[in-house]
Amino acid sequence: MDTGRSPLKGIEPGSQCMISDSQGKQLGTAFVNPGQLICARLVSRRGPLDRPLLEERLRQALAMRERYFPHSSYRLVYGDSDWLPGLVVDRFGDILVVQVSNWGMEQLLPDVVEILDALIQPTGILLRNDHQGRTMEDMPLVNQVVKGNVPEMAPFEENGVSLLAPVHSGQKTGWFYDHRENRALLNRWVDGKRVLDLFSYAGGWGVQALAHGALDATCVDASQQALDWCRLNGEYNKAGDRLHTVRGKALDVLKEMVAAGERFDVVVLDPPAFIKRRKDHKAGLAAYRHINELAMRLLARDGLLVSASCSMHLAAEELLECVRGASRKLDRTAAILASGYQGADHPVHPAIPETRYLKAHFVHLR
Amino acid sequence: MDTGRSPLKGIEPGSQCMISDSQGKQLGTAFVNPGQLICARLVSRRGPLDRPLLEERLRQALAMRERYFPHSSYRLVYGDSDWLPGLVVDRFGDILVVQVSNWGMEQLLPDVVEILDALIQPTGILLRNDHQGRTMEDMPLVNQVVKGNVPEMAPFEENGVSLLAPVHSGQKTGWFYDHRENRALLNRWVDGKRVLDLFSYAGGWGVQALAHGALDATCVDASQQALDWCRLNGEYNKAGDRLHTVRGKALDVLKEMVAAGERFDVVVLDPPAFIKRRKDHKAGLAAYRHINELAMRLLARDGLLVSASCSMHLAAEELLECVRGASRKLDRTAAILASGYQGADHPVHPAIPETRYLKAHFVHLR
Repeated sequence: MDTGRSPLKGIEPGSQCMISDSQGKQLGTAFVNPGQLICARLVSRRGPLDRPLLEERLRQALAMRERYFPHSSYRLVYGDSDWLPGLVVDRFGDILVVQVSNWGMEQLLPDVVEILDALIQPTGILLRNDHQGRTMEDMPLVNQVVKGNVPEMAPFEENGVSLLAPVHSGQKTGWFYDHRENRALLNRWVDGKRVLDLFSYAGGWGVQALAHGALDATCVDASQQALDWCRLNGEYNKAGDRLHTVRGKALDVLKEMVAAGERFDVVVLDPPAFIKRRKDHKAGLAAYRHINELAMRLLARDGLLVSASCSMHLAAEELLECVRGASRKLDRTAAILASGYQGADHPVHPAIPETRYLKAHFVHLR
Repeated sequence: MDTGRSPLKGIEPGSQCMISDSQGKQLGTAFVNPGQLICARLVSRRGPLDRPLLEERLRQALAMRERYFPHSSYRLVYGDSDWLPGLVVDRFGDILVVQVSNWGMEQLLPDVVEILDALIQPTGILLRNDHQGRTMEDMPLVNQVVKGNVPEMAPFEENGVSLLAPVHSGQKTGWFYDHRENRALLNRWVDGKRVLDLFSYAGGWGVQALAHGALDATCVDASQQALDWCRLNGEYNKAGDRLHTVRGKALDVLKEMVAAGERFDVVVLDPPAFIKRRKDHKAGLAAYRHINELAMRLLARDGLLVSASCSMHLAAEELLECVRGASRKLDRTAAILASGYQGADHPVHPAIPETRYLKAHFVHLR
């Protein structure tokens, strides 16, 4: 859409409008923002997303998590997939962290907070509206406790491991719940193994591996703060000197480790999105290929590579092709043991392929 | 390839030949069969698959399973993915069931049996070379114990549940290990639920669900023998009257149940391949769409559909599209909680997409 020439210009960003097709058939109500490429986001096949419908949607989102999770550490609301475009709510037991990313949802935010408070009675609700996505919509950046108290580090559980999420100052809402199932799979296979966790952030993979019997885990991150959180999670799990942290850019650290002849039984490669926009596809693909090859060079014989990507513009098959190409180049035989996606608290909307963004291949390398 | 005009006609089926490209560069050794569409199957990037290499490959296959499984119930050899084209070996503890599907492997079969015997020292080895795939290669049909004793029903374990596999007279090798992980996921979500297991065979899904707390399970199969095995597995797990069996074609039974207004909390739809050959694609797709719609009609509100396919010619995305279309037609909101493939004992060969054939979508339906 040429947003400069849009006939929608007169519409206030975030307004709810009935959308009709060219024959005049009503398709449903949408959040409209004339300044955005995706200028309308369907919120209902019928009338507006008003307070009663909002409450119904939030109740359904909660009921679905309560149906499929025996604990209370999960993504409670996942935007479009829960028919609540622009809203993300992560739950850490009694703490809720809320993110809003469009004007339509912004207008409903006071209602969202009230309803969540009544439904869940959390001890604290934190608004993490300080993410860059909001600047694209000219929305103000806010990081604010809107109810009760929210500790610096929120305790929660993942795959039977007690952890702490830096909800106030960490990335996104403080934790990446999306890899829960992939980590659960890896946890089965780390007993007695040496694990390298690249782009470790707060230790989601590495510390969990230690809690599941890994011989040692080396967490690599460019951020000292992330490594401090790693340490904290390590101490929380009595990892002792089995946890190593290395500060540096992953590519630099990988090259140094390759040069030093280091080897690991398991390498977890879970980088940030290299392909943020469709036009970055080619360069991003080359970056994935390159870093997968470097990661493989550090794998011992019969080692396990977990190769992940959160780029929605990179198909699982394309990532697999990067892995295949790298293994051929190194003349190592690859067998794909499993391919995982995001967990059930990040459900995929079958009509919105973009809601499936995460993939992780488990690759056994001879 | 026009097999009638093939220049390979003079080659004995199953011969090992060095394959070179048009520039004369050697690509590796292959099993050659001039009568087949896939007339050459690479067995090595270097010399022939002789006894020492065969032994190395079988050792590697075993080492990989021992690395990733804490038990001995798995597919030990998965054809091309283990660089052993045409060979399948399923292990039920001390029992091995072997299937060979091309002439090249047939010639190595005596060596395969000897090496497996030495490596694993099984109490029995059964040759299940009575599958229809062999008739396509003009290979004789054989069902024969070649070592020790093999009981009618082989005991084994899947996801912590003790089961019996009809190795002598069941389908394929007697059990479908490929869905292990998908069943494990479902097992988490069946407590207190009413489960319908369509195309149940010996009760892989239904009986396991009962062992994990399902209120009841209804197994539907066209074969009385399959339902007898279901019953046996039910008794083995003290399912009592929580296990129901219904004999009939799935489509007929589905229609009757829809007409009778029956509802289940969980429906497992795990049909045989509707798309056996590429040219069946269109008809097969329509069949998947139709049966998914029928299955959905039996789902209670907030029910869970497990929609599986073992057609290698049906992409996971195509099956998802069937699910999406059916849910739209019924005006029910679908959320995809998970998408699973075959387990780690059926590894995918990254250069052979056909080695990934199984897919299962877990669909929450409002």
